[in-house]
Amino acid sequence: MATFAGLRALAAKGSGRIVRSRWSPLPVGFCSRGPEVSGGPGSESRPTSTRQLDGIRTIVLSNPKKRNALSLEMLKCLQNDILHEAESKDLKVIIISAEGPVFSSGHDLKELTEEQGRDYHTEVFQTCSEVMMLIRNHPVPIIAMVNGLATAAGCQLVASCDIAVASDKSSFATPGVNVGLFCSTPGVALGRAVPRKVALKMLFTGEPISAQEAMLHGLLSKVVPEEQLEEETMKIAKKIASLSRPVVSLGKAAFYKQLSQDLRTAYSLTSHVMVDNLALQDGQEGIEAFIQKRKPIWSH
Amino acid sequence: MATFAGLRALAAKGSGRIVRSRWSPLPVGFCSRGPEVSGGPGSESRPTSTRQLDGIRTIVLSNPKKRNALSLEMLKCLQNDILHEAESKDLKVIIISAEGPVFSSGHDLKELTEEQGRDYHTEVFQTCSEVMMLIRNHPVPIIAMVNGLATAAGCQLVASCDIAVASDKSSFATPGVNVGLFCSTPGVALGRAVPRKVALKMLFTGEPISAQEAMLHGLLSKVVPEEQLEEETMKIAKKIASLSRPVVSLGKAAFYKQLSQDLRTAYSLTSHVMVDNLALQDGQEGIEAFIQKRKPIWSH
Amino acid sequence: MATFAGLRALAAKGSGRIVRSRWSPLPVGFCSRGPEVSGGPGSESRPTSTRQLDGIRTIVLSNPKKRNALSLEMLKCLQNDILHEAESKDLKVIIISAEGPVFSSGHDLKELTEEQGRDYHTEVFQTCSEVMMLIRNHPVPIIAMVNGLATAAGCQLVASCDIAVASDKSSFATPGVNVGLFCSTPGVALGRAVPRKVALKMLFTGEPISAQEAMLHGLLSKVVPEEQLEEETMKIAKKIASLSRPVVSLGKAAFYKQLSQDLRTAYSLTSHVMVDNLALQDGQEGIEAFIQKRKPIWSH
Repeated sequence: MATFAGLRALAAKGSGRIVRSRWSPLPVGFCSRGPEVSGGPGSESRPTSTRQLDGIRTIVLSNPKKRNALSLEMLKCLQNDILHEAESKDLKVIIISAEGPVFSSGHDLKELTEEQGRDYHTEVFQTCSEVMMLIRNHPVPIIAMVNGLATAAGCQLVASCDIAVASDKSSFATPGVNVGLFCSTPGVALGRAVPRKVALKMLFTGEPISAQEAMLHGLLSKVVPEEQLEEETMKIAKKIASLSRPVVSLGKAAFYKQLSQDLRTAYSLTSHVMVDNLALQDGQEGIEAFIQKRKPIWSH
Repeated sequence: MATFAGLRALAAKGSGRIVRSRWSPLPVGFCSRGPEVSGGPGSESRPTSTRQLDGIRTIVLSNPKKRNALSLEMLKCLQNDILHEAESKDLKVIIISAEGPVFSSGHDLKELTEEQGRDYHTEVFQTCSEVMMLIRNHPVPIIAMVNGLATAAGCQLVASCDIAVASDKSSFATPGVNVGLFCSTPGVALGRAVPRKVALKMLFTGEPISAQEAMLHGLLSKVVPEEQLEEETMKIAKKIASLSRPVVSLGKAAFYKQLSQDLRTAYSLTSHVMVDNLALQDGQEGIEAFIQKRKPIWSH
Repeated sequence: MATFAGLRALAAKGSGRIVRSRWSPLPVGFCSRGPEVSGGPGSESRPTSTRQLDGIRTIVLSNPKKRNALSLEMLKCLQNDILHEAESKDLKVIIISAEGPVFSSGHDLKELTEEQGRDYHTEVFQTCSEVMMLIRNHPVPIIAMVNGLATAAGCQLVASCDIAVASDKSSFATPGVNVGLFCSTPGVALGRAVPRKVALKMLFTGEPISAQEAMLHGLLSKVVPEEQLEEETMKIAKKIASLSRPVVSLGKAAFYKQLSQDLRTAYSLTSHVMVDNLALQDGQEGIEAFIQKRKPIWSH
């Protein structure tokens, strides 16, 4: 399938060190808690932490002291955590969340000084772009769960997820202009999520918008009170985890593919996808169960 | 004109049995009440009913017992009802509404079982896609008037209309994932109507959104209390029926065509369209009437 | 840079009489108060007035008696006022506002009669399209400040600006259908600003939407009470004027360019733009200032 092939190509081109270990059904940390990391709890050498249960993988940006900056290390960990056993049938949905009051402040500006040099800068932005595209090309839905401030590439990360749920105290900004670095890469995701007049005001002024405004303009799928954030996000994740993975996966890939096509091509593609979907084991099981008024039993 | 040619081509490729009878100014049923149907009132063999008055054609999905499912028969009737004398100057606008508490529940799942087979499935989705494209390519505006639940291909039908008015008790969902059939074809129309974060939450969870949310996110043009639904929809339809048909028709075709073009091409196209519009009899009549401070008299 | 080259090409193709005088830091009127105009205050021969201070140029549509109609003369003045020393480092942002209760009523219908002829009509729509594209291709952000009614090409002008701020008493319409002239060119800008169901209802019925609705649907960046309109608009303009012009300029060009590209191409482009941005003098100054916890000093 195009999606999976794309994923593999991306992975090969990407970090070059995808974890391909035997699947662990219990909570694990693919990148940060892997063999290469030896620090104790709270160690700054763990930029992410990961757990997985009942098909739901949660990746937590875990560097609150650095406002969960998307350093090159953080980006590579995130990439690995997302890619880890992406094709396993035990993975149904991924949640990306964060520790502390800042979801993510975007790139680590210390990595963008003149001393670091052009090649390093290039690697940072390429890796970041790969992570954002990986989210779209991944076979399972990826949900951002935001409780706090998301700025620059942090805002881009939220905009790049398939679904985004945020607490009402969250806010979103692309303030690169304040430090002389226009948020051009975040603008790719932002400009595809919100109307351009909203995007350009954010990009030109750097000023934040509230969660309510973000919801209104399409950056978020849902806004809830802080105390309900985890519950509401888990409700969506559990719902997705209860569905047929191949059906959801086929649908996700088709949705993004048709979105940029002309209407006739889009309908031609998706009409074929519908017929293929019906030919899947889970496609026929779903229809049969519906007609027999029983719950479907998915192959996985 | 491209639109008309496209319409004819679509019709030829489509059902292959377009009604081309003499124009009837009084209420008629093109598909369901035509000579081929003999059932009495309330007969299940009439999936749509149609009337036309003062340039306004109303097509009613009339199979409430089956939740107005878009069976292949229903789709073909809808296609005929929309295509019927599409080029007549007596037709100015079309309203698609429905009997009963469900606007439409989408495809008839009994037509999508393994027994029906791949070829039949293909015909169902192709016909459905043709109906949706026909709405866009039709020379007159097509309005969805929704009072209730619109799901799957029913939601797609609402999203595909040029204008959609709904009562505040209406709701919209793409719940195919629940039966193992991702709403990929509905996603074509939905993904072009609402922000992708809203679309993907609907597609991945199958959960409905309210009429207010649908309005907020661009799926609807207007939401009104149930008791005002017909009045408000008719107000819009009557307004359109009072306008010059060739002007509206030229504008509708140009709008959709330019939408996917780059800005320079779009302005080049529409600048020519404006000049052509002015050269129409009704174009000059409109300008003259405005300057002479009188009501314009349209050629048709 | 592509943007600047495009600008020059547009200018050369456009009015052909770009003012290239020595820069004047004090308020000036580039088009209307230039040497070619001799009328006194209030003269109808001045369709626009212009002032510039601290990097902020304000262009005022100044023909309230004619509801600030976008006559060919008005369009050419607006074009000159926008193009005037566009590459000067003293220009940081442009505000387009209007005198009187109507922001702009769109084209002057007296210029669109049969007597004026096809060639003249063509010149009107081409010039108008050039002005709209000039706004997007201009190196600095252009803000519409709207206090009142904006219709047809007047609504198009608002939709074409990068940012739009309006008072809560403002409203927006594309009522061309009422005079037999479908707003096809305004539809280009409108259809790229708001959801298509909203755009088509406006285009097919000609009925206005309120500032609140316009904000909700993406036509505006901000709505404020009338008495705060100037203050809030100036706040945005001053913020932009305080930023690095080359950084903002690079970002604006990249934003629009990537918006129509596929995701991979968009990220490839903008990743390069980010690296180029960092290599700018102001890019490194911004990062350094941030790390040194001081205010950046822009080269311009």
